Amino acid sequence: MAKIRLKDIDTDPPKDIDKGDTKKKLSKILGELDELQNLLYAEGRHSILIVVQGMDAAGKDGLTRDVFTSMNPQGVNVKPFKEPTPEELSHDFLWRIHQHAPAKGMIEIFNRSHYEDILTTRVHGIIDDHTAKQRMKAINNFEHLLQEHNNTIVLKFYLHISHKEQRSRLEERMEIPQKMWKYNANDFIESKLWQRYMEYYEGAFEHCSDIPWHIIPSDKNWYKSYLVAKTLRDKLHSLNMKYPGMKK
Amino acid sequence: MAKIRLKDIDTDPPKDIDKGDTKKKLSKILGELDELQNLLYAEGRHSILIVVQGMDAAGKDGLTRDVFTSMNPQGVNVKPFKEPTPEELSHDFLWRIHQHAPAKGMIEIFNRSHYEDILTTRVHGIIDDHTAKQRMKAINNFEHLLQEHNNTIVLKFYLHISHKEQRSRLEERMEIPQKMWKYNANDFIESKLWQRYMEYYEGAFEHCSDIPWHIIPSDKNWYKSYLVAKTLRDKLHSLNMKYPGMKK
Repeated sequence: MAKIRLKDIDTDPPKDIDKGDTKKKLSKILGELDELQNLLYAEGRHSILIVVQGMDAAGKDGLTRDVFTSMNPQGVNVKPFKEPTPEELSHDFLWRIHQHAPAKGMIEIFNRSHYEDILTTRVHGIIDDHTAKQRMKAINNFEHLLQEHNNTIVLKFYLHISHKEQRSRLEERMEIPQKMWKYNANDFIESKLWQRYMEYYEGAFEHCSDIPWHIIPSDKNWYKSYLVAKTLRDKLHSLNMKYPGMKK
Repeated sequence: MAKIRLKDIDTDPPKDIDKGDTKKKLSKILGELDELQNLLYAEGRHSILIVVQGMDAAGKDGLTRDVFTSMNPQGVNVKPFKEPTPEELSHDFLWRIHQHAPAKGMIEIFNRSHYEDILTTRVHGIIDDHTAKQRMKAINNFEHLLQEHNNTIVLKFYLHISHKEQRSRLEERMEIPQKMWKYNANDFIESKLWQRYMEYYEGAFEHCSDIPWHIIPSDKNWYKSYLVAKTLRDKLHSLNMKYPGMKK
């Protein structure tokens, strides 16, 4: 994959995209997704793994709410990955991840993922470049395993916001009561490491691209949610799923 | 790895090996293993995965009893893999395996393992040759993952018995009260598929040999247990482990 330069990619929607229009389209897609998810579950032939990555305040939680709220939770699961526990750290970095790989018929959303193990860890010097390379190879093998051996469609999204937009959202968390619970002083420290995060994200896109990344302009939440929903809808459509007949 | 022909490998101990003598040596090694396991646990730097494969009645359960009984069970765990459950089958074949990978400091024994997924399944035509090849590649990647990303030493043992010895042991199960609980009429059907099992075992040794196999002559249980214990002892010795000092 050609090297992606994040600074060359717009974080805003293209000029000719209309907000009201896009919201109407999203609403229609959500209706289709509801039906498609039911079909995925009934057919039980594929599974979907949605990897959501992005900087703090990029809108990962909001995406989950916007796109997956209307689906039957029996077939949809969200797994947020936080800092690893001591037990998790006493295993290889994919151990805790693999356990949450989706069963056939299921949609699993990773809110952060195994990619943190080559991002945050690198930015903070917990692993060196050599280990990062080994991990990227292991990640490729792991994603292939899911795809080849369990019919898992892996969809990887990077929610791309500008540094300016991030700062403004982090500041909001100090001011708006409904957002204060998300406030974390550490986020401002992390924000200062922006350039290094961008560099390591670009490394992840370059070396872990056997299964492609979708870079989603995310300064506007309505556009971000629309793009992700549309990508998922198109992928599910392409599977030519059918309801099984009666069991004999 | 050069192709192994099982029929060319003796299932009996070499002629000059004395039973009483070997049993004394085993007993000494077990004492050393007890100490080494304690050190492994205390140091918490490596983990050990012991994969035990073999035909029905090859002595897998007996091996576990002979070699690991004297170790502290807090640091040792045995996981027997049986026929997969519906939940396990709705994931990739390594999903249930990975969950039991040993934490640092631990010894994990797999009584049967991911290798059944390229043996029994092939013999019974559940997977074709193409899938078997893909699985063997995935197995190599998986074993590398454990080794590179969690300091896991993977020791793979094939308990090699003759077809004649197997039949005699299966017949014993119909006659000796303490062994009857192991009797399973299916084992005799499986026994008829001996040649195909041998062929697919040879395929596994050939294509999954990045981490080498130890072929253990197993017609005599005392020799089998001695060889496995010795291999494990030598490996643990080679790790140059040290007790950590006081935590600061």
